[in-house]
Amino acid sequence: MEGITVAVDAMGGDYAPEEIIRGALRTIQETQLNIILTGNENEIKKILEKENKDLLPIRICHASQAIGMTDSPFEVLRHKKDTSLQVALELVKKNQAQAVFTVGNSGAALALAMFILGRLKGVDRPALAGIIPTLEGRIVLIDVGGVVNCHAYHLVQFAVMGHVFAKYILDIPEPRVALLNIGEEPLKGNDLVKETYNFLKKSPLKFVGNIEGKDILHNKADVVVCDGFVGNIALKLGEGVVEDLVTSIKKEAQKNPLAQIGLILIKKSLRRVFEKLDYSEHGGAPLLGINGTVIIGHGRSRAKAVKNGIKMAATFVKQDINNRLEKGLREHRAFMPTKYWRKLTERLKEVVS
Amino acid sequence: MEGITVAVDAMGGDYAPEEIIRGALRTIQETQLNIILTGNENEIKKILEKENKDLLPIRICHASQAIGMTDSPFEVLRHKKDTSLQVALELVKKNQAQAVFTVGNSGAALALAMFILGRLKGVDRPALAGIIPTLEGRIVLIDVGGVVNCHAYHLVQFAVMGHVFAKYILDIPEPRVALLNIGEEPLKGNDLVKETYNFLKKSPLKFVGNIEGKDILHNKADVVVCDGFVGNIALKLGEGVVEDLVTSIKKEAQKNPLAQIGLILIKKSLRRVFEKLDYSEHGGAPLLGINGTVIIGHGRSRAKAVKNGIKMAATFVKQDINNRLEKGLREHRAFMPTKYWRKLTERLKEVVS
Repeated sequence: MEGITVAVDAMGGDYAPEEIIRGALRTIQETQLNIILTGNENEIKKILEKENKDLLPIRICHASQAIGMTDSPFEVLRHKKDTSLQVALELVKKNQAQAVFTVGNSGAALALAMFILGRLKGVDRPALAGIIPTLEGRIVLIDVGGVVNCHAYHLVQFAVMGHVFAKYILDIPEPRVALLNIGEEPLKGNDLVKETYNFLKKSPLKFVGNIEGKDILHNKADVVVCDGFVGNIALKLGEGVVEDLVTSIKKEAQKNPLAQIGLILIKKSLRRVFEKLDYSEHGGAPLLGINGTVIIGHGRSRAKAVKNGIKMAATFVKQDINNRLEKGLREHRAFMPTKYWRKLTERLKEVVS
Repeated sequence: MEGITVAVDAMGGDYAPEEIIRGALRTIQETQLNIILTGNENEIKKILEKENKDLLPIRICHASQAIGMTDSPFEVLRHKKDTSLQVALELVKKNQAQAVFTVGNSGAALALAMFILGRLKGVDRPALAGIIPTLEGRIVLIDVGGVVNCHAYHLVQFAVMGHVFAKYILDIPEPRVALLNIGEEPLKGNDLVKETYNFLKKSPLKFVGNIEGKDILHNKADVVVCDGFVGNIALKLGEGVVEDLVTSIKKEAQKNPLAQIGLILIKKSLRRVFEKLDYSEHGGAPLLGINGTVIIGHGRSRAKAVKNGIKMAATFVKQDINNRLEKGLREHRAFMPTKYWRKLTERLKEVVS
């Protein structure tokens, strides 16, 4: 991955800038990547000095503002014109970097990326693909919050983009694509998924049908397609349940001395199970459909997760994913809803709302 | 609860008819309820004899067919005219019973209940309310699969019905109502929840705003409102994650002798945590908005869960919930979408689809 430059937004997420910078430093030590850190120059320099790494070949691009986790995308677009994320995206726009890695506010990242870099050909709405750790590996859940009001053609595009991503980044030769639904039978679900089912059934993708929420972790598919509202709720719910269980088991075991000993003996096994499912470690949600490479890490990413995210950004560039996405969408155009049909339903939806 | 008769569908779910019948017998021993078991008379009699309980005051109503867990509601309505569930519902219709308890195929139960008993006044679409065990109690998630294509006025009705149910069955004096969403800010979400938010905000309900998937278990609200597609996926996902974790922890601990001992020591604590969250134990999903009382238990209900479900059905009758639901909907009519507005959006939706 020599020669690839990743612009890393040093100011986002819960542990910024320390953990972001540490992750960037580790990446440089392990790979041949070039990194440009964007954010408050003084703060970044101080940390580099503290880590004794101010002599490493790492560049800094100053930005006077940072995006908070609760800033709305509209506010950011209108009033924050010099954020670390914007500076990072503009480095890609100006071809001084090939990819952006940021941690945190995914809504703002999507809006800014759309605004600065634009969309790929054939993409109506870029999607946020969640890479979800399961007990037996990982899957792509697409979309997890990029598009919350979806038409069938959005979901079909998500399926194609998820397929390309799983194939070339997760190294799954023939990814199985499924539709997240409330039952496995073809006739189940709301109007949106029923319509999408009919398109996917005819497509050349390896479509394995519907899967239910409980089977997301069961490795029944490699790419799980859903609208961004459902996907975001599923993602956060799954993550929340896992966290709650860890806390509850610990709390419950504290009540009894024998159980406390048991907890110590079983600690490693518990940790292995929960590490497998730790979204903040495996995370890294690529924005698919943007004319540029943007990978968003979990808000709670620490150095290791940051390193993995930066590496994923570089792999994305190296594997030429965006060209493959455009090619994939072109090749699958034949079974997508026609332009006329799409215009019609879109127009009518506007009238309704 | 003397004098109340519950018709219990003996043929549904994974452990029918044995566990259903055992649950019914336990209920009779503990309460003054009358029970009519519906289903295959010979099979039921054999089990009653085996349990030495053929002399208890329990009636049997024969039905020649049973509904399978994968039977589609349409098939059941068209081709299965003498199922145990239908017989149970008709007992309520004929006023020979006041409530139905069934386990299993909720889609078929909803369709049959609508067909045989009809809707309450002011209800557009009856909802399936899930009673979800959380770490600190339980909440009502409404809807969990009754209505998969929702308008805002459906969701507002769900909110009112969930409020009434939580108040009079779960004994929460002033239930907090929240909207399941992808973020807590008012402007978050898809068009449906944004619209619903505006109605609920103005309502006299104790509306606490949006909650995210991860907070369902955190007791931030007593009634969580969502469309049936989202609710069903959330319900099954949550249940699936909990089950998977139990299995994985056991499997992982088997790999190491010390961890095995740890597992034995901690077993009770683990069980307490998982029992708290066991939906099949706490379950019992009432159909709200039906002109009659129908409680649906989890497909995996065993005797204890069946007993709890039958008791809930009787409480539903005793508390006169259906009158309270109609009254609640009448009282809240002022802040619901007007009839004209609803007709317009409905008509336009038909045109689109």
